Amino acid sequence: MAVVTPKPFRTLWEIKDGIQVIDQRKLPHHFEVVNIFTLEQSVWAIKEMVVRGAPLIACTGAYGLYFGLMEAKKTSDLSGILTAIRNSRPTAVNLFNTLDRMEQELSPLQELGEMQKKALALARLIVEEDVEICRSIGVQGLPLLEDIYRKNPNRPVQILTHCNAGMLGCIEWGTISSPIYQAKEKGIPVHVWVDETRPRNQGANLTAWELTKHGIDHTVIVDNTGGHLMQHGMVDICIVGADRVTRNGDTANKIGTYLKALAAKDNAIPFYIALPSTTIDWNSFNGLKEIEIEERHEDEVKYVWGAREDGTIDKVLITPKTSKALNIGFDVTPNRLITGLITDRGVCAANEESLLNLFPEKH
Amino acid sequence: MAVVTPKPFRTLWEIKDGIQVIDQRKLPHHFEVVNIFTLEQSVWAIKEMVVRGAPLIACTGAYGLYFGLMEAKKTSDLSGILTAIRNSRPTAVNLFNTLDRMEQELSPLQELGEMQKKALALARLIVEEDVEICRSIGVQGLPLLEDIYRKNPNRPVQILTHCNAGMLGCIEWGTISSPIYQAKEKGIPVHVWVDETRPRNQGANLTAWELTKHGIDHTVIVDNTGGHLMQHGMVDICIVGADRVTRNGDTANKIGTYLKALAAKDNAIPFYIALPSTTIDWNSFNGLKEIEIEERHEDEVKYVWGAREDGTIDKVLITPKTSKALNIGFDVTPNRLITGLITDRGVCAANEESLLNLFPEKH
Repeated sequence: MAVVTPKPFRTLWEIKDGIQVIDQRKLPHHFEVVNIFTLEQSVWAIKEMVVRGAPLIACTGAYGLYFGLMEAKKTSDLSGILTAIRNSRPTAVNLFNTLDRMEQELSPLQELGEMQKKALALARLIVEEDVEICRSIGVQGLPLLEDIYRKNPNRPVQILTHCNAGMLGCIEWGTISSPIYQAKEKGIPVHVWVDETRPRNQGANLTAWELTKHGIDHTVIVDNTGGHLMQHGMVDICIVGADRVTRNGDTANKIGTYLKALAAKDNAIPFYIALPSTTIDWNSFNGLKEIEIEERHEDEVKYVWGAREDGTIDKVLITPKTSKALNIGFDVTPNRLITGLITDRGVCAANEESLLNLFPEKH
Repeated sequence: MAVVTPKPFRTLWEIKDGIQVIDQRKLPHHFEVVNIFTLEQSVWAIKEMVVRGAPLIACTGAYGLYFGLMEAKKTSDLSGILTAIRNSRPTAVNLFNTLDRMEQELSPLQELGEMQKKALALARLIVEEDVEICRSIGVQGLPLLEDIYRKNPNRPVQILTHCNAGMLGCIEWGTISSPIYQAKEKGIPVHVWVDETRPRNQGANLTAWELTKHGIDHTVIVDNTGGHLMQHGMVDICIVGADRVTRNGDTANKIGTYLKALAAKDNAIPFYIALPSTTIDWNSFNGLKEIEIEERHEDEVKYVWGAREDGTIDKVLITPKTSKALNIGFDVTPNRLITGLITDRGVCAANEESLLNLFPEKH
């Protein structure tokens, strides 16, 4: 299906009386957009993972709150609406923070019409704030790529990434992808090695798709390959995202990140984390000891989803039916393996002192 | 299909006027055996990867030579038969060595009947030699597992492996699996973490299948997970196979082995290579510089094969159709990351001096 998307290309945009989002469950095989006009549709889109990625979930929730208020009869309906959205994805911290913020601004208002107007304004503001945070990460990270290119202008900058920390989890730009897209805009040639990122293949499914969409040269590899590439000088820099960064710079990210960080260290290749500053958990001091790691269903390991020859999306079993599987969602990369953190406030070393230099208010 | 296999369970066994082998293309979803009675069928089984793994290919070729001689009219047909088998898999070194050896023993013989008899005896000998080499690897490696269990008898010995270096590539016992099977026979509880081993999933397909068949407790994990398990004390020892080991102990093995060796080193977990001594390349001194690494077709990365709900075997596409993929078959683990080599002659450190102590004839 050919779909015309607005410029700049985003994951969520307004239409008359509603929004449209990309149905990410069908990527990269089918590009379909979904219309959302109601609270119920918003909750469904979050629950069913039509939208995924903490910032995008939060923005969808923000519009859901607005839609809920448009359906409401009185201002006191606000709390029921908030509960409905909060129950959609119980672990999405960004969503909770966003709803808390909206509640604080909306609950003092006396008139429903005023509340509706304010909710829409806030949803729009939250979307634009996310765009600006991601754009800033790109501005901060771009010099790293420029520097590599300046030193070796004979080939495109070779970037390795893991999972999807691109625009698909956000609104525009993404985190790791923001310096990459900005490099392209400045005419710096880049090439991205995309870890497929088993078990859910967000690299092969999503990162490869959005790089294609942005015209970025890339090559998909299995997660086993990065070490070999680094041994042979085929990677200039690794940039990955983060699910949580502790006060000392330890980083929880998609399972397998730690192995790539080890290989980068072993081959003296810079290893960076790109993150919005909201991902920093200032109350956590030791990633390995303090960050709880999610265990997911074993079927994500035992079955692989993809497109059959006829285009239908199906799964295939790759293990004996009776074999057990263990599905760990994330791992923790100790700060000693991390060259630096690329935040919207600037780039810094992965330790408490450097982080506090960028965020003095957290002292 | 219920198939009665001989005891002990092997990958290749004689029947009247022929042999049977397991059709490994269909594992783990379907257990089917294939009858081989002719030279042509032998070549087909090797070419089509009905059988895989260097020792098993060599044994199948040895029987193929016997079948060819049974079809022959005169002793001079030998060279044509040899050529037919040699052309089946151009890179299988074990197959070439086996055929060279048989040629040397057979070509002096004057009568076809004598040649046929000798070829059968040699094929049987080569099979039993492989069984004995693999059994010996187990005898040598078993004390490592016993030692771990003695120190921590409160849980099964936790072994992590990558790819398939089990009995399926050999005749019986296998290499990494030989100490594991022998531990089980001695009543030592073991549990194996099975890396699925993308892109061809030999771990999920083959290792998980043969461990199931041998009643060994195991859990399949994606290749990204091993580092996390090692960080959390969930792995006692890593044992992997080898495609080639240099004189100084550098080891080429399935892509991704290097990443696991890095994680083992970082967490002070012993990392062993199990190998028949025929895998040592005494003329090679530096794995990273001297071992040529095979690049395979990108479709092995872009598509995943498995069983659909209805049991049919099919592939699904996991990337955008237009995205490129790179498929590197092997990587090299430098000897500094290897705790030891488990050979049929004994266990030694991964360096030239220690190897020469075990193999003084190579001085």
